Amino acid sequence: MSDDTSGIREGEVATSLPAAFDAGLHFIGRIHTPWTRRADCPRNARESDALCTIEVSPAFAEGLADIEGCSHLWVLYWMDKARRDLVRQRPRHYDETHGTFALRSPARPNPIALSCVELVAVDGNRLTVRGLDCLDGTPLLDLKPYFASTDARPEAVVAWHAARRG
Amino acid sequence: MSDDTSGIREGEVATSLPAAFDAGLHFIGRIHTPWTRRADCPRNARESDALCTIEVSPAFAEGLADIEGCSHLWVLYWMDKARRDLVRQRPRHYDETHGTFALRSPARPNPIALSCVELVAVDGNRLTVRGLDCLDGTPLLDLKPYFASTDARPEAVVAWHAARRG
Repeated sequence: MSDDTSGIREGEVATSLPAAFDAGLHFIGRIHTPWTRRADCPRNARESDALCTIEVSPAFAEGLADIEGCSHLWVLYWMDKARRDLVRQRPRHYDETHGTFALRSPARPNPIALSCVELVAVDGNRLTVRGLDCLDGTPLLDLKPYFASTDARPEAVVAWHAARRG
Repeated sequence: MSDDTSGIREGEVATSLPAAFDAGLHFIGRIHTPWTRRADCPRNARESDALCTIEVSPAFAEGLADIEGCSHLWVLYWMDKARRDLVRQRPRHYDETHGTFALRSPARPNPIALSCVELVAVDGNRLTVRGLDCLDGTPLLDLKPYFASTDARPEAVVAWHAARRG
């Protein structure tokens, strides 16, 4: 199920995944970034101002109509290098474990990543964006407009993370 | 590929989907809401204060550890009633078409919905939340903590939408 060779760290817990899948995904494009090894990726998107390119497959390119008027987008992509069975895990650089659903780690039952990006330019089926931190060649799943009215929650708090930094 | 019986509206464009899927998803729980017909669902989550329940399957329940300290969560779910081949579409109540990736419509190549919810209570493998607008019984794909530092963009603009309301 996984090509993650790091094994399980102390305190981590794996579950048994179902034998079959319930639904299927189409890869609709690829993300091009400067990072070809996981160790080189920024720890989160705010750590890098690098411009990245999202290339949408020709079959889906017409779906980009009107996207140039979106200042920010949600990019959903597939973290295909991550193991999927960890329910409790300890990310790199962390001393303690947390439940998978309280983390943004790539290791999760459905490794769908979610990043908010700033849309810099549109050229046919290629978007130039700022705000990604994934490996070069990562498969693209979806693009959505960012609506501040429903998506922006500046007051949101993650207690375990706030305690860690405090 | 679809049980959407509404067909294609004037100006909408469908593409040819690939014959095979590239990756598979596990449904990790179900979402319980007051709405059993699409016509009854709120048009967006801000239109309803209804409390909804997210039930995580026992195999994944340990992944909820520490989630109670998250004020807001991202809920990713599967819109399994939507057709997947539309690249240009005209949502209900709209006069004009837009590219699929400039819309939050459920009809998209990978019908993964994304909603920010307020976490109200945690009881074992059941979360009470506010801010969903989906059908009762919708399959759950993922839960993620909302980090204001990377996810909140109050300044974001969607030009076609702003022009429509202006």
